[in-house]
Amino acid sequence: MAESLTSSYKKLMEKVKNLFILESTAAIVHWDMETKMPPKAIKLRSLQLAMLSRIGHKMSTDPEIGKLLEEIMRHREHDGLGDIQKRNLYLIKKHYDEQTRLPEELVVETARQQAMTIDTWKKAKAAKDFSMFKPELEKLLDLRKRAAGILMDVKRTATPYDALVDIFEPKMAVGPISKVFAELREGLVALLRKCEVAPKQPDISILKRRVPVDAQRKIAESLAEFIGYDIKSKEAGGRIDETEHPFTTGYYDDVRITTHYYKDNFASSIFSTLHEGGHAIYEQNLNREWIFQAVGTACSSGLHESQSRSVENIVGRSREFWICFLPKLKELTGNILSDVDLDRFVHAVNQVKPSKIRVEADEVTYCLHIIIRFNIERDLFANKITVAELPQIWNQSYKEYLGVDIENDSEGVMQDIHWASGAFGYFPSYALGNIYSGQILATMEKGLSDWKTQISSGNFQNIKQWLAKSVHNHGNLYDPADLIRRITGEELNVKPYLNYLHKKYSKLYGF
Amino acid sequence: MAESLTSSYKKLMEKVKNLFILESTAAIVHWDMETKMPPKAIKLRSLQLAMLSRIGHKMSTDPEIGKLLEEIMRHREHDGLGDIQKRNLYLIKKHYDEQTRLPEELVVETARQQAMTIDTWKKAKAAKDFSMFKPELEKLLDLRKRAAGILMDVKRTATPYDALVDIFEPKMAVGPISKVFAELREGLVALLRKCEVAPKQPDISILKRRVPVDAQRKIAESLAEFIGYDIKSKEAGGRIDETEHPFTTGYYDDVRITTHYYKDNFASSIFSTLHEGGHAIYEQNLNREWIFQAVGTACSSGLHESQSRSVENIVGRSREFWICFLPKLKELTGNILSDVDLDRFVHAVNQVKPSKIRVEADEVTYCLHIIIRFNIERDLFANKITVAELPQIWNQSYKEYLGVDIENDSEGVMQDIHWASGAFGYFPSYALGNIYSGQILATMEKGLSDWKTQISSGNFQNIKQWLAKSVHNHGNLYDPADLIRRITGEELNVKPYLNYLHKKYSKLYGF
Repeated sequence: MAESLTSSYKKLMEKVKNLFILESTAAIVHWDMETKMPPKAIKLRSLQLAMLSRIGHKMSTDPEIGKLLEEIMRHREHDGLGDIQKRNLYLIKKHYDEQTRLPEELVVETARQQAMTIDTWKKAKAAKDFSMFKPELEKLLDLRKRAAGILMDVKRTATPYDALVDIFEPKMAVGPISKVFAELREGLVALLRKCEVAPKQPDISILKRRVPVDAQRKIAESLAEFIGYDIKSKEAGGRIDETEHPFTTGYYDDVRITTHYYKDNFASSIFSTLHEGGHAIYEQNLNREWIFQAVGTACSSGLHESQSRSVENIVGRSREFWICFLPKLKELTGNILSDVDLDRFVHAVNQVKPSKIRVEADEVTYCLHIIIRFNIERDLFANKITVAELPQIWNQSYKEYLGVDIENDSEGVMQDIHWASGAFGYFPSYALGNIYSGQILATMEKGLSDWKTQISSGNFQNIKQWLAKSVHNHGNLYDPADLIRRITGEELNVKPYLNYLHKKYSKLYGF
Repeated sequence: MAESLTSSYKKLMEKVKNLFILESTAAIVHWDMETKMPPKAIKLRSLQLAMLSRIGHKMSTDPEIGKLLEEIMRHREHDGLGDIQKRNLYLIKKHYDEQTRLPEELVVETARQQAMTIDTWKKAKAAKDFSMFKPELEKLLDLRKRAAGILMDVKRTATPYDALVDIFEPKMAVGPISKVFAELREGLVALLRKCEVAPKQPDISILKRRVPVDAQRKIAESLAEFIGYDIKSKEAGGRIDETEHPFTTGYYDDVRITTHYYKDNFASSIFSTLHEGGHAIYEQNLNREWIFQAVGTACSSGLHESQSRSVENIVGRSREFWICFLPKLKELTGNILSDVDLDRFVHAVNQVKPSKIRVEADEVTYCLHIIIRFNIERDLFANKITVAELPQIWNQSYKEYLGVDIENDSEGVMQDIHWASGAFGYFPSYALGNIYSGQILATMEKGLSDWKTQISSGNFQNIKQWLAKSVHNHGNLYDPADLIRRITGEELNVKPYLNYLHKKYSKLYGF
């Protein structure tokens, strides 16, 4: 590479490095807000986060970045750059073009409003009072609509909502998503009907046995150990805390997860720990050489979800996992579960039953929750519906898709943090993640045909390595559709996921 | 006030507000490093803290601040500004003049080196290996020497070390400190000799009874409640966590303390909780109207220490406090302390005995630990001694001042975090704080003569209000010597503190 080109590229990468350092700092401050912050601090915290946003926006839109990008592009030898360098430039330019179009005042006000809306959401949820939440959500939605309108123009998407989806799932769009979601819904509903009328039905009473929080904490630590998510050693790069809504946050050597412990629902923390653990090992397995580079981030939210759902469900709800882990669970819970039978337990944790809460939903109904949210978000951003109408539309949709009655908005439209945090456009990634996970599993079964045997003997290492090599290590080198094509050799395809579900549930339910 | 003056002043205050928001953010990131951060994250964290330092330095030295200050000073009506506004301007100008002289590269490198030195200190202390710590401490000392050289010039102090002392104790200097410390040492050593040969000696065996950490945690919570430091309610603005070295950090609505629970030394967490709690209530009682202003900060480190030492010792080690709290302590520790007699307990927690560890030292010997550190710091910055010589000089001084033999550097020169964090110049504030606390107590006894009776009946509220009104509410409106003069009507004076000690210990030890 010519010296002037190298020098411009280096300068650019130094600027990007600072941006990653700042963002990883903001992640810590966010994490603290969710896990440790004294309640009185919320106003101060919203000012702190707004300030970090302002600084981040200034750094992202530094005209020097634009100049360096131009210098590099103009350089006659820039065609000879390597793939990684080219991808870095592509991602940096995309981010720069988008951020420079968003007014600083909008970015800062959004960050401030996010912190306030999350706080109000928590209080409104506790009080089961949507009317408390509504005005804050309206303000935040207006801010996101403004951003979506601007981003639509920069990203050249068909609608403002497409522009938000592109943030989480680059190059994905409402059209193709609607198409695969229709196919997915049809397959899931058919499977749901089969389970509902099947001869073998699970006995879930064992899952209601009360397990003390201390024991659940030890179980979570043991699960972390199983998947190789280090939270204990002197070299640990992770930790587990408690929040109402579990999440994963962090960067490379500091990736933290949260879970919540319900005394009368010990399975909840087990599967949320595995889910967030799946996210965490993705982040920790990113190529170390790419730290502080644009390629050194995860591919997309959907790919992230494919990893968390794989660990939670494909591994964590498999019979083979429980061959290995049930004895450990019994040991950690004293005599509470000592009489539990393997097959009954596995069927219980795989009960298929339409329910109200997304994060507690089974694999068969989970994506129906997502499709409801996707439809609502799409209509909100098309101005077809208003915030005031959300509870009613939500409840109707749950009746139509899942046949359940929502009794209050805390178990309805206010159950998730996403809208309170302004993350409109994120939800489709959850269902896409499940679809990806089916495709990735079908490929893994070719390369690692004995993965189930390995799990039953307590060995997760080879699976983790396979996932690292196939998915995690690639970081953000490809857009999601391209990465899926590279891994599986095919386009986005619902069938492998539906096949996986059909095979698993026909066996469990005996149809 | 003229409109142009008002407008310049407002613009200036907006800039200062941002600086306080940034600093309070950095405090959270520091707190996380000390309490929650996974160990692997240390390198990333040092980059994050260095970046926040760089941003803070840029904001502090924004030429716009200089321009606004000039505009205001030049304005013919600026003489008519109120005292608070004038003090804000004085403090802002002082900070601006100092910061603009410190090169950004020095500030950033110092922040980075601080994080690394603290990390190395922890490891070296655990390994009892000063040679691990030495090279990092040398680097940090060199950086602080560079800063001290520059600050000496700006602050017009007699020596570089005076300039560092001025950071923590504005307008204080090595000369007067040496003078009061000589008087203090003489008084303390005389008192120590009396205690050592006194007829009544304490039985400290009760303090060695093992109290489970869970019980100690409840005791700490109960102490927080006693002093009105809210860590539990929905309006809580504080929290307690665990660190090797207890500390207080935060700003207004988010002030956090840490403590350390030793199974075989339950008194340690009791007194460190009271100590840090004393710091915390100072911060929380700052005038709310002054948030984000320069006057809305504590007066000095010494004043801060006067408050923590008052709560820890003058209140927390008084017979009257234990009349109230011993029954609570017995209740929270089951049958572990049920047989303990009030007078024996009070004498035990007031044992006077030369020891190796500053934070565990009694009131009579405590300041001797400080004087040792002050002498060493003064000589380090006068280039009379080197880092390599520290262990030897430390051990000699402990022999000379306290008659104790230091067995390893972890209980010697590496016991405190201060030098590892670059806080040279801080130590004198501890002893000054004790001296202030004696003067403040003498004044309080005039206005609130029944304070001891109040405490014995569990009422700390009036004392807290008196301290708030006399000390906390004044924020940074005066330099420490001026504040002490306003509160007590006299100059810095060792006698009230020595009188307080003499009265208390002659009674306890029967001389």
